[in-house]
Amino acid sequence: MNNMEYARLKAFVDLHLLDFLPEVDNNSITIYDSMKYSLEAGGKRLRPILLLESYNFCGENMYLALPYACAVEYIHTYSLIHDDLPALDNDDLRRGKPTNHKIYGEAIAIIAGDGLLNSAFELMNKDMLLYLDDPIKLKRRIKASYEISKGAGCKGMIAGQVADLEAVNKNCSKELLDYIHVNKTGALIVASVRAGAHLGGASDNILHSLTLYAENIGLAFQIVDDILDLYGSEVEMGKTVGSDSKLNKATYPALYGLDASMTKLKELHKAAITALEPYGKRADFLIELANELAIRIK
Amino acid sequence: MNNMEYARLKAFVDLHLLDFLPEVDNNSITIYDSMKYSLEAGGKRLRPILLLESYNFCGENMYLALPYACAVEYIHTYSLIHDDLPALDNDDLRRGKPTNHKIYGEAIAIIAGDGLLNSAFELMNKDMLLYLDDPIKLKRRIKASYEISKGAGCKGMIAGQVADLEAVNKNCSKELLDYIHVNKTGALIVASVRAGAHLGGASDNILHSLTLYAENIGLAFQIVDDILDLYGSEVEMGKTVGSDSKLNKATYPALYGLDASMTKLKELHKAAITALEPYGKRADFLIELANELAIRIK
Repeated sequence: MNNMEYARLKAFVDLHLLDFLPEVDNNSITIYDSMKYSLEAGGKRLRPILLLESYNFCGENMYLALPYACAVEYIHTYSLIHDDLPALDNDDLRRGKPTNHKIYGEAIAIIAGDGLLNSAFELMNKDMLLYLDDPIKLKRRIKASYEISKGAGCKGMIAGQVADLEAVNKNCSKELLDYIHVNKTGALIVASVRAGAHLGGASDNILHSLTLYAENIGLAFQIVDDILDLYGSEVEMGKTVGSDSKLNKATYPALYGLDASMTKLKELHKAAITALEPYGKRADFLIELANELAIRIK
Repeated sequence: MNNMEYARLKAFVDLHLLDFLPEVDNNSITIYDSMKYSLEAGGKRLRPILLLESYNFCGENMYLALPYACAVEYIHTYSLIHDDLPALDNDDLRRGKPTNHKIYGEAIAIIAGDGLLNSAFELMNKDMLLYLDDPIKLKRRIKASYEISKGAGCKGMIAGQVADLEAVNKNCSKELLDYIHVNKTGALIVASVRAGAHLGGASDNILHSLTLYAENIGLAFQIVDDILDLYGSEVEMGKTVGSDSKLNKATYPALYGLDASMTKLKELHKAAITALEPYGKRADFLIELANELAIRIK
C-alpha cells in the first residue's frame, strides 16, 4: 500500500505491537523471543488497521482500540506460525524470513502460537478491567472481544483451516472453496472490522455496512493472494511461491482460471465500495484501501 | 477419588462438557470430532471441580459457573493435546487411550488444541453477553475470565511448559523445578480456584485463603503425579509410565528422592488444609479433596 494514512497507521501498530505481550522472566524468555520474532517479521497489519479504521469511522480516540487491534494481529500471527509447521503447510519462508519453527524448533513454535492466541484474549480481558465502572464502554469491549473470539474460532478461521487442510489432493467444489475463503481469511477480517465498530459504539446500520464491506474485501484479499501466489515472483510475496498449488490446495485461480478470478475480484471490489458510498468522506480511507487491494494485481 | 460428592460433580461436568463447543458444520466436522475425542477421553476433571467448589464456597447456583468450569477443562485438554505431540513429549497414550494425533494426525491435533483454547475464551465471552445489564455479576465474570487467561498464559501455564521443555537433558536446579511446577500445573489450578471465587463474589479474605489452598494442592498434585509416573504401574496411570524420566525431565522424586518428596507432599497437604480450617464445615469438600490427593500414594 502506498497510501500515507495506511503507512501512518501501520507505523502506529508496529510501534505498539509488543506493548501488550506479557512480561515473561528469564526461565521462559524463549517463548517471548519466539512470539516477538514472528510479530516483528513484517506483514501488512491489515487486520489491526481495519479494526482501528472501523473504530475511527465511529469517531473516537484511536489509542483506546489499540489493545484489540494488537489482539487480532496476535491471532493472525499465531495462525501463520501454526500453518507453517511441517505437519501443516511445511513452509520454510514467510515474508522473506525463515518461519518460526525453522528458528526456534517445532516445539517452541507450537507453544509460541498458543502463547499469542492466549495473549490476545488476556490483553482484551485486561483492558475490560479498566472499564468495570463504565457500563457503556464495558459492553462495547465485551462485544468486540466476543466478535474476535467467534471470528478466530471453530465456526470461523479454524473451520476454514480444517476444511482447507482436508481439501488437499481432493476435488474441491466451488461451494467448498467459498466456505474455505469465507472462514479461513474472511472471518478474522470481518471480525476485526466489526470489533472496531462495536468498540466505537456503531449503530446497527453502520455495523451492517461495515460488515458488507469487510466480507467483500476479505474474499477479494484472498483471491489476490492466490493469484500472486500462482503468478507472482518469490521476492514480491516473501514466501515460497507455489506452495499452495504444490500441495494441490484449492484456490480461486486454480478452480476458475485467471480471467474469471479477475472478474470476481472486480465484483467484490465494487460491492465493498458500494457498501460505504452513503457515508461520504468518512469512508475515504476504507474505500482507498479496497482500491489498493484490488490494484495489487496489475 | 472415592468421595461421593466428587463423583457427583464429575458426572455433572462430564454431562455438560460438550454443551459449550461451537456447533460446527460438515465441512469442518473433523475439528469437532477431534476436540470431542480428547474431552471425552476421561480425566479427573480436577480443575472444573475446583472451580465449581470454590464457587459453591461462596454460595450460589452452581449451574451459573458451568461455562467457566468447562472453559478451564478445555484449556487443560488443549495443553495435553499439544504436550503429547511428537515435537514435544511424543506420547502415544493418554489416559489409556491413543493420544489425539495418533487418531487424527498431527495437523488436526494442533488445530484441535487451538480450537479448544479459542473455544474456552469464546464461551466465557458469550456468557458475559448474558450479563451486560447486571454490572455486579458482569464484573465477577470479567475477573474470572481474566484470572483464567493469566493462569493459562505466558506468565502461567505456558511459561511452565517452556521452562520444562528447555530443562530436558539439562541440570535442573531446585529453583527451576519449583518454577516449572508452580507454572505448568499450579497456575491453572490456582486460576480455577480463584475464578470460582471471583464468580461467587468472594471477599478478599476468602480469596486469599482459597488461593493459599490452591497453591499448595497444585504443587502436591504435581509431586503425586511424578511419584506415580516413576513408581506406578502403566494401568494405574493410563499413560506410558516413565515417559518424563525417559526424557530426563525434571521431577521432584528425580531431584529430591522419594523420601524427601513424600515429606514435601505432607507439608503441602497440611498447609492446604490449614488455609481452610477457619471456615469449618463449609470447607469440608475441599479439605476432603486435599486428603484424597495425598493418599493416592499409599
